[in-house]
Amino acid sequence: MRDTRRWHREAGISGVLEIAGRARRAAFALATTATAVKDAALAAMAAALDARADEILEGNGVDLERARAEGTPAALIDRLTLTPARIAEMANGLRHVVTLPDPVGETLASWTVPSGLAIEKVRVPLGVVGIIYEARPNVTVDAAGLCLKSGNACVLRGSRSAISSNAVLADILDEAGTLAGLPPDSVQLIRSTDRESVKELMRAHGLVDVLIPRGGADLIRTVVEESTVPVIETGVGNCHVYVDSAADLGKATAILVNSKTQRPSVCNAAETLLVHRALADRFLPGAIEELTRRGVELRGDEAARSYSAAMKPATEDDWYAEYLDLIMAVKVVGSVEEAVEHVNRYGSRHTEAIVTEDEAAARLFAAGVDSACVMVNASTRFADGGEFGFGAEIGISNQKLHARGPMALPELTSYKYIVHGTGQVRG
Amino acid sequence: MRDTRRWHREAGISGVLEIAGRARRAAFALATTATAVKDAALAAMAAALDARADEILEGNGVDLERARAEGTPAALIDRLTLTPARIAEMANGLRHVVTLPDPVGETLASWTVPSGLAIEKVRVPLGVVGIIYEARPNVTVDAAGLCLKSGNACVLRGSRSAISSNAVLADILDEAGTLAGLPPDSVQLIRSTDRESVKELMRAHGLVDVLIPRGGADLIRTVVEESTVPVIETGVGNCHVYVDSAADLGKATAILVNSKTQRPSVCNAAETLLVHRALADRFLPGAIEELTRRGVELRGDEAARSYSAAMKPATEDDWYAEYLDLIMAVKVVGSVEEAVEHVNRYGSRHTEAIVTEDEAAARLFAAGVDSACVMVNASTRFADGGEFGFGAEIGISNQKLHARGPMALPELTSYKYIVHGTGQVRG
Repeated sequence: MRDTRRWHREAGISGVLEIAGRARRAAFALATTATAVKDAALAAMAAALDARADEILEGNGVDLERARAEGTPAALIDRLTLTPARIAEMANGLRHVVTLPDPVGETLASWTVPSGLAIEKVRVPLGVVGIIYEARPNVTVDAAGLCLKSGNACVLRGSRSAISSNAVLADILDEAGTLAGLPPDSVQLIRSTDRESVKELMRAHGLVDVLIPRGGADLIRTVVEESTVPVIETGVGNCHVYVDSAADLGKATAILVNSKTQRPSVCNAAETLLVHRALADRFLPGAIEELTRRGVELRGDEAARSYSAAMKPATEDDWYAEYLDLIMAVKVVGSVEEAVEHVNRYGSRHTEAIVTEDEAAARLFAAGVDSACVMVNASTRFADGGEFGFGAEIGISNQKLHARGPMALPELTSYKYIVHGTGQVRG
Repeated sequence: MRDTRRWHREAGISGVLEIAGRARRAAFALATTATAVKDAALAAMAAALDARADEILEGNGVDLERARAEGTPAALIDRLTLTPARIAEMANGLRHVVTLPDPVGETLASWTVPSGLAIEKVRVPLGVVGIIYEARPNVTVDAAGLCLKSGNACVLRGSRSAISSNAVLADILDEAGTLAGLPPDSVQLIRSTDRESVKELMRAHGLVDVLIPRGGADLIRTVVEESTVPVIETGVGNCHVYVDSAADLGKATAILVNSKTQRPSVCNAAETLLVHRALADRFLPGAIEELTRRGVELRGDEAARSYSAAMKPATEDDWYAEYLDLIMAVKVVGSVEEAVEHVNRYGSRHTEAIVTEDEAAARLFAAGVDSACVMVNASTRFADGGEFGFGAEIGISNQKLHARGPMALPELTSYKYIVHGTGQVRG
């Protein structure tokens, strides 16, 4: 285990602001690093992950041992566990990023103004991207790959529970990347796991250009409240399926069941079902049966509960809840407008689906809900960078500033104006 | 003075969060308000400003009287003062916004993915825009006009010094806009002038979609540090003019003098001159004379001071300074790279100019400086929404997230994905 515990020596030596300062210098160089160099580095990183799988497993073993000793729940242990197959998957993820187009350098617009100035709007990297994330060590590799391809230096801050795994992974990425020609410090992991180090990262305004928290609602809230660095909020999904009066019943049931049960633990799974009153008699009994049969616990308003003796009453908290589990809130509404109002009041601005054969209702719903993605006659589970054809995803943004919905390489960039004159001055 | 002091009655009755909540409801309606209705409302607002100029002057008189009693400096009193001509200018500003294209509803991209889903990326308003600003009452009208045209509700928080002027203006805009068919509460002014009300606005996360502070560096810093609402930092300009070894001396002098002296109090005025060593002998003596003749105080490094006995030594603070005054820091550098490094170390990421006839040097500088605008052989003073042909400007962004450089109507929008399926579920 050559280097697995190098972080022990390094922790404490260099503060977070020093790391961020080094990242900023790396970012200046990365901004003009050629695509071919970035791609070669990503390929070298992938090869290094494969070649050093044993070290990675050894580092992961340290985390797993500690997690078991601390009585960590099985689901979290599973998310923390790396296997040869999962390591190969991470390496292949990097190889896939190589195949994606480099967004940097694209001319987004160009025009000439009456003063004779020729203005170019050119896509540039954001600079230094900070990622704060929870247990899954694959984020270390995925996030680094996407940041590097888009010309950004990254500062990674994973959780304490995955620190040994993340440290090995970051060392491998850093060494392979630097050998392949990337600026030093293009990928850095913060190895101190105390709260102070997260705070320092959140206050590194001027050194870090954006912070992307990836994790649960509590993590996101903390970052939003404490960060002076601009934040992109991601991944809190209280998604709704609205079954309109003009819904096709077969589509409605299929979309509802898929949205709720295909993978209940992810942010684009549905949490609340809204049903138009006119359709409730025909739709709800069958829908309740389908969901219940798949183990979904339902919590409804009075009208919904009239279709099921077993349904618990929904409280105000249920309408706000992101269960991430086999639980669903159910409400009967009188109109598209009432559905829209409910979504905008309780939702998390992530993804909503409407099932309807009425185009006017679909338009009203799509325009009315204040969410990143609106699915018309499709499962909420399609709100995903891969399904959208982006080839990758760094997260799903819940906010309206900068990027909304699935974020891929272009969302990790900004732009600058380059203006060519011939000596113009303002009169 | 029909309503000038209505704010006295209202202050305290409704808290900032209540105002923000009303704005959010207005924003939902505004998002789908037709362009014609928005334009008619803007025209009606302009007419109302003209028709009620006497009330505006009366309200402004209250502010001016208090300002004089408090011994406010003449420059600030001038910025606070409204005249019939300035009122007409505000009204014409609104009429100009009517002529600009409505960005809302534009399809930014559309494509179909292998699952058969048809994805549309559509431009939508940001929602609720909060503006925190200092003395100039015209911001009340300008900001409201741009927010409304782009479909946003706005919550305005001006300074205590302009509260009577702002209250009359906001009342007129609100009344005229609502009469012309805008949703109620589309334009609201926070009438409480204590610090608590700014704090509440900065913490209105979930109700306000973005905060744009317009004012000095201290205001911007406070908002960045305390806001949980996403912020767009604007208008701090420590701009540089770099005169390269391959500069045309005539262009260099003209661009330098214009960048520094044409309007020294604004953010796109230059604050630091960087001169390539190879050109210093030929360029600096004349440049120093031209600047000094125009009343510019110079503060230089040792090399620069060798050209002028009168030049004071520059301290570290001078390299960081945004003087907004007839003061300029001067440094002699050995290369384009050294100029770039200086800019990236001390600059505010706003606007830099290079004067050179060497295209390779221009490219190196333009790619290297981490700033919103790079002027090649043109004055820094052209970094401006009007000069860029945007037709308007809500501010100049210093950050890389969401919008960079001059911000106009499209920068006040976000987007959403509307996905059309035929019953698709994920397998």
